[in-house]
Amino acid sequence: MLEVTNFIRNNWYVAAWGSEVTASKPFARTLLNQPIVLYRNEASKPVAMIDRCCHRGAPLSVGRIEGNCIRCMYHGMLFDQAGQCLYAPAQTRIPTDAKIQTFPVEERHGFIWIWMGKPELADASEIPSMPWLSTPEYEWKPMYLYYLSNASLISDNTLDFTHLSFVHGNSVGTPGQAEMKAPYTEVDGGLLSTRWDMDSDPIELHRLAGMSGKVDRWLISRWYAPGMLLLEAGACPAGNGGPDGSRAGGISFRHTSIFTPETDFTSHYFWTHARDFKLGDADLTDKIHSTLHDAFLEDKVMIEAQQRVIRSFPNEKYVGIAADAGPNMGRRLIAIRLEQEAALD
Amino acid sequence: MLEVTNFIRNNWYVAAWGSEVTASKPFARTLLNQPIVLYRNEASKPVAMIDRCCHRGAPLSVGRIEGNCIRCMYHGMLFDQAGQCLYAPAQTRIPTDAKIQTFPVEERHGFIWIWMGKPELADASEIPSMPWLSTPEYEWKPMYLYYLSNASLISDNTLDFTHLSFVHGNSVGTPGQAEMKAPYTEVDGGLLSTRWDMDSDPIELHRLAGMSGKVDRWLISRWYAPGMLLLEAGACPAGNGGPDGSRAGGISFRHTSIFTPETDFTSHYFWTHARDFKLGDADLTDKIHSTLHDAFLEDKVMIEAQQRVIRSFPNEKYVGIAADAGPNMGRRLIAIRLEQEAALD
Amino acid sequence: MLEVTNFIRNNWYVAAWGSEVTASKPFARTLLNQPIVLYRNEASKPVAMIDRCCHRGAPLSVGRIEGNCIRCMYHGMLFDQAGQCLYAPAQTRIPTDAKIQTFPVEERHGFIWIWMGKPELADASEIPSMPWLSTPEYEWKPMYLYYLSNASLISDNTLDFTHLSFVHGNSVGTPGQAEMKAPYTEVDGGLLSTRWDMDSDPIELHRLAGMSGKVDRWLISRWYAPGMLLLEAGACPAGNGGPDGSRAGGISFRHTSIFTPETDFTSHYFWTHARDFKLGDADLTDKIHSTLHDAFLEDKVMIEAQQRVIRSFPNEKYVGIAADAGPNMGRRLIAIRLEQEAALD
Repeated sequence: MLEVTNFIRNNWYVAAWGSEVTASKPFARTLLNQPIVLYRNEASKPVAMIDRCCHRGAPLSVGRIEGNCIRCMYHGMLFDQAGQCLYAPAQTRIPTDAKIQTFPVEERHGFIWIWMGKPELADASEIPSMPWLSTPEYEWKPMYLYYLSNASLISDNTLDFTHLSFVHGNSVGTPGQAEMKAPYTEVDGGLLSTRWDMDSDPIELHRLAGMSGKVDRWLISRWYAPGMLLLEAGACPAGNGGPDGSRAGGISFRHTSIFTPETDFTSHYFWTHARDFKLGDADLTDKIHSTLHDAFLEDKVMIEAQQRVIRSFPNEKYVGIAADAGPNMGRRLIAIRLEQEAALD
Repeated sequence: MLEVTNFIRNNWYVAAWGSEVTASKPFARTLLNQPIVLYRNEASKPVAMIDRCCHRGAPLSVGRIEGNCIRCMYHGMLFDQAGQCLYAPAQTRIPTDAKIQTFPVEERHGFIWIWMGKPELADASEIPSMPWLSTPEYEWKPMYLYYLSNASLISDNTLDFTHLSFVHGNSVGTPGQAEMKAPYTEVDGGLLSTRWDMDSDPIELHRLAGMSGKVDRWLISRWYAPGMLLLEAGACPAGNGGPDGSRAGGISFRHTSIFTPETDFTSHYFWTHARDFKLGDADLTDKIHSTLHDAFLEDKVMIEAQQRVIRSFPNEKYVGIAADAGPNMGRRLIAIRLEQEAALD
Repeated sequence: MLEVTNFIRNNWYVAAWGSEVTASKPFARTLLNQPIVLYRNEASKPVAMIDRCCHRGAPLSVGRIEGNCIRCMYHGMLFDQAGQCLYAPAQTRIPTDAKIQTFPVEERHGFIWIWMGKPELADASEIPSMPWLSTPEYEWKPMYLYYLSNASLISDNTLDFTHLSFVHGNSVGTPGQAEMKAPYTEVDGGLLSTRWDMDSDPIELHRLAGMSGKVDRWLISRWYAPGMLLLEAGACPAGNGGPDGSRAGGISFRHTSIFTPETDFTSHYFWTHARDFKLGDADLTDKIHSTLHDAFLEDKVMIEAQQRVIRSFPNEKYVGIAADAGPNMGRRLIAIRLEQEAALD
């Protein structure tokens, strides 16, 4: 079975980029098969609740934000940010069961994170730290892709270097990547891959950043279940770098890719590619993100085609190969989380 | 459960506006999950039958009207208006079972009414009387909306005044309507609501009709299961009106809204808004219907959104409020009819 | 039941026109509910295999042809024309079960034929002979229609003359065709119908071919299960023709229609209309095929409408008539083939 058919629930998922959610108009997004409405309260803090009025089922997202509250615009039911009904038309007593389920949300690093598992387990300190998205030392912009595939197929892709040579053969891939051995090891509950390319020629981006001589390059990947890839890529003048080096005079990219299930067969993909040089150059920001966007569309075409086939033949058995090592490690970590979660019930 | 999952069958339903059905081209419409073909015979009387040739299943609606008959244009089978086959190609004897199911139809008040229940129970005298649609003293035009929702959700809406303040807050609604108490009483097998606003200022429409002083206004709603709303609205010079008054010197609107299920999740909505003043002013007719059409689209957006949510979560429980009194009375009358019908089988 | 709900598998089906399949880009087509990828090898011979990589399910049709092989462009798995894996990334040993199912294919008479039944039963000598498609004495061009219907409904249509008077009443049909008696007899495992019209006036096409006096005309239809119609139509100067005549000085059309199931409710329709006169007149070729194409669209509209009705009412019973004799003979031959095939398992 190539598809993971249920979702980890006790997890901080990215619900939206912070810039997508406002205090003026409710924002609707389906997450883990649940319709969710998001909005900002008077203190500009995000609020998330089920996008379904408890009275007659109308979506709250076609309603109206009123201060800290949201009003269903069918019959006027008004709910506060805890989901409690404050007003029902033509009556003074509010029905005690007139309540909308809300979800813990936190805004960090540009993302709005949502917890859709057991509320008592929500611990905001478990939200991953991404300081490069919260500092003026890095520049980036928010990017989004809508995927017609289960999130597990995207996750596989992010843990696999082999596909770079084929899917991206005409863009960012090189032939040698297909032959790299499975490079991940389990570290701190995630997967880590570290690659160094010492004393090599600078590429165009390096020259653009002012480096002309030989460089030491690094690519450090960190993956976390159920769906987050954090990449650290960069270069510094040869001799300054290395696993224990100072990396002085170098440049750094911090890539962030996070995918959140929408339904069993669709996903949200949030990503950005932050850099620490030529800050303020908006054209360069656009160019970097646009180049990567084109490459990510190559993945999307392939993964969505794969999803269509897998869905058409749900009982098909597939053949494992050595290059599956990374994806298989990721799937094992997801499976362990699912087992732990099942044990909670 | 917010949806009524079966339909009353022993009922005169509106199948079409009379103007939709001609003697030149068959008219196809699905009603109560059945594909129906309608046409006019040589006497211009409407005929309705199942839109499926008994020979090979081709739709008769892609066929040809020939006098009182309709011909399937696949192999030429010819059926008279009783559904009896008169011609089959390449043979002289007509198969005795070559027959299409027909339905009692009556044309009244501009509508073509169809009876899809037990034929022996069809009694044309039960077709509601709407004299304002059959007299030169009123002017109106036929209107139609296609609804992506179960008819019961439309029915609820027509029995509910609360939504006026919210769904129509920017058009025909006013804030006070949300707080009106449930105004319906059961009268003669239907529901009746009567409201009077005595000695009040005339609105624009009243002035347009030549009234300048204070007026007495009325709004009388009559609702009949499973889906018909008849409104009587008007004004006359103050002192002439009142429940027992002559209403002399006044103007009158007669609104008609009838909804017929197409399928479990789609409906036909027929309506018109007749007036008894400024007859012959086609621009005014257009303006009145266009203004109401815009308001009805506000309902449609909300009800279709509600339907999508309800359909996605069929087992969801909803909370009742005081404003449901009207819709609940309507649902009870529908339930009684369904029970009576079940007892017939 | 009007639909044949399973397909004969041990049969040579047309998968594509030869011109649709190249050595430069894989060609994807679903046949008998199976996704198939087709391409040409270095010797320009067609190859057909399941369009699904055995590794992770990606479609091979978004892959790359490399000589005799096809490469999955997700992770680079390379398969030879027998479906055997020759390369898997990052490993030297090829998994023994890394294999794609292939199908016998043969290219004849402009078509690529595929055998999707038991491979050991594939006998290329059973592919029908169509010499008129393989000789410079006839001119034609390849035509294709995509049908939203089960192939059996198309098959019925090709065995039925009655519909000509109705479906094609405004194009190629004449009133008398509806009354023709069932004209087929079983001959050599197929169905044969022969009609002669002696000493008649030439039609426009005859005059175009240089015939001015009276002509003898013939129309000989041959139908083979599960879905092939071969027509021989022509005319020669009166007195030269007849079943045993020389047909000297005449002209001949050889029509070929073959339909292959795509899914239970969709079909591929391949056809062409070859002629033996005015060779090299490309405008005439276009005109002949375009006229027939328009007539075939009349069938397609009716059959697809019929399919929609039949699918909506799967348990409906239909009435048989005399004109069903041809279609019924065809269905009986299909049923016999299905029974024979079931006995093989």
